[in-house]
Amino acid sequence: MGNQTIYFKNRPRIVATSTIAGPKECEGVIGRYVERALSDDMFGESTYEKAECKMLSTVIDGAIENGGLSRDEVDMLVSGDLLNQIISASFAARDFSVPFLGVYGACSTMAESLAVSAAFIDGGLCKNVVAATGSHFASAERQYRYPLELGCTRPPQAQWTVTGAGAALVSAAGDGIEISSATLGKVVDFGVTDVNNMGAAMAPAACDTILAHFRGTKEDPEAYDLIVTGDLGALGSRILKDLTWEKGLDISSRHVDCGEIVYNVIEDEFQGGSGAGCSAVVLNSYLWSKMMSGGLKRILFVATGALLSTVSSGQGESIPCIAHAVTLER
Amino acid sequence: MGNQTIYFKNRPRIVATSTIAGPKECEGVIGRYVERALSDDMFGESTYEKAECKMLSTVIDGAIENGGLSRDEVDMLVSGDLLNQIISASFAARDFSVPFLGVYGACSTMAESLAVSAAFIDGGLCKNVVAATGSHFASAERQYRYPLELGCTRPPQAQWTVTGAGAALVSAAGDGIEISSATLGKVVDFGVTDVNNMGAAMAPAACDTILAHFRGTKEDPEAYDLIVTGDLGALGSRILKDLTWEKGLDISSRHVDCGEIVYNVIEDEFQGGSGAGCSAVVLNSYLWSKMMSGGLKRILFVATGALLSTVSSGQGESIPCIAHAVTLER
Repeated sequence: MGNQTIYFKNRPRIVATSTIAGPKECEGVIGRYVERALSDDMFGESTYEKAECKMLSTVIDGAIENGGLSRDEVDMLVSGDLLNQIISASFAARDFSVPFLGVYGACSTMAESLAVSAAFIDGGLCKNVVAATGSHFASAERQYRYPLELGCTRPPQAQWTVTGAGAALVSAAGDGIEISSATLGKVVDFGVTDVNNMGAAMAPAACDTILAHFRGTKEDPEAYDLIVTGDLGALGSRILKDLTWEKGLDISSRHVDCGEIVYNVIEDEFQGGSGAGCSAVVLNSYLWSKMMSGGLKRILFVATGALLSTVSSGQGESIPCIAHAVTLER
Repeated sequence: MGNQTIYFKNRPRIVATSTIAGPKECEGVIGRYVERALSDDMFGESTYEKAECKMLSTVIDGAIENGGLSRDEVDMLVSGDLLNQIISASFAARDFSVPFLGVYGACSTMAESLAVSAAFIDGGLCKNVVAATGSHFASAERQYRYPLELGCTRPPQAQWTVTGAGAALVSAAGDGIEISSATLGKVVDFGVTDVNNMGAAMAPAACDTILAHFRGTKEDPEAYDLIVTGDLGALGSRILKDLTWEKGLDISSRHVDCGEIVYNVIEDEFQGGSGAGCSAVVLNSYLWSKMMSGGLKRILFVATGALLSTVSSGQGESIPCIAHAVTLER
């Protein structure tokens, strides 16, 4: 195919958002922008998985309310998460009597769900769609790595899964942030097998999608105020800047990574945030606020996902990754 | 929302399909229609998961070839499967340099991926999209229930996960089967907790979507040659017919279930087929053939999915289910 970028001629727009985040997350810069800060990451539930699901329900409800809609005015919910069989999204959807489209893109879910929502709205099939995702540090650690109770040492290249969720109400009309295009990613695998080094695994996928975007649109990175990746972390971000630079594209003056800004990163300790909730929270709180106030006019939001499972890793497979990009304009 | 059904005004069409199925599956009625019959369900691979992935790659390639396209003419691949983190779809996508949209709808994936493909094509965003899914008896048993090596007894209400995969090439133009509408389902949970009784769990979701479809379109079941559900099995099908009849809709003369027809069912033994591959194989082989030859003109394809995980069941949750419907016309 010639051009990987699709253009939404009717410019669906994000008209409202909602976010929630855990105590560790709210210590950082996003704390001031998150709608609801949790003092306890159990959120009053008996398991981490149920807490994750409740966070997702809360922000879906929040986005609908903040957009001034009732639930029965929402045509569709597009959501997914990191857990096996996306149970957070499926069980959250059970609370809403709304058609549900389950998606799986690991940590790229926020961009994927925005692109799918925009496609249904752009073609006149839906008027109001909620795109949402989230993650929880403890449920992700238990599923992908080790239960917290084991107290395993974290290597310095590890990232910290964000406890948080974000939702965006995408509509055919109204005041908000326009989604003008989407560049859907291909699966890219550079052979990384270290499940504690997601940033290095995902950076080539981000590079591939960003190069495809600029090749297709014939724009320069300067056409954007920011090129925001999802959760590469500090090390992954450096790798991305190197990879794009080697291919003749200098994004260094525009690039920022949600994983790098969500915590106060000390690289000796860990590389920053990750998880589907990472870019979802940063986009729908901090970046939403900066765009709505006019501080940012045009951003390329590139959420990245590592498509591994414990079974695939156990069977000796490397980590295939993906990155989806959407152009957001105010 | 008033109407759950969306209409594709440009009528995207399925212009080619491809299917593969295991030895047990090919003993049944679909054996004559499946493109490629496996004599060994390992498919030359070292693990069941890798065999499942290879089946999916094979049918994606097959649909592209049968449609007379080359890989670089395909704009997008929409796929998902039953395994944790949809590794079959993600790893299959790694073999194709094509933008990939991962979806998760459990056994409803064939209808979900067709609806998403049709939406992107209907709005002029894509020209050619492959929708594909599959499942494998052994990988599903190991993940959802017990490893085969344990030799656990199967209760009579159990179904048998189909080893097979199906892919459809959906295009903006060409000769084929038109996708005229989609009714995306809501998550429905009637409180069933028996993970061996998926048909009973999923029947209310199928009922909900079918009722929504006929309420929205104001059609009668007689407007269809067939109303085809995905994998309710023999027991689930009886429950569906009862539930719809109680609500004043008699579908009994039109209804058939892919799970019921895929094997020669003896209810004392098991209830028939299930799995994402069940409806994918039946639709893309038998039903495709019957529609292309003019034997069937209009069908409502309603694939059903159980959105549980072993974690949600272990935490005492019931099984939320979903059904997505697409109208297919020749």
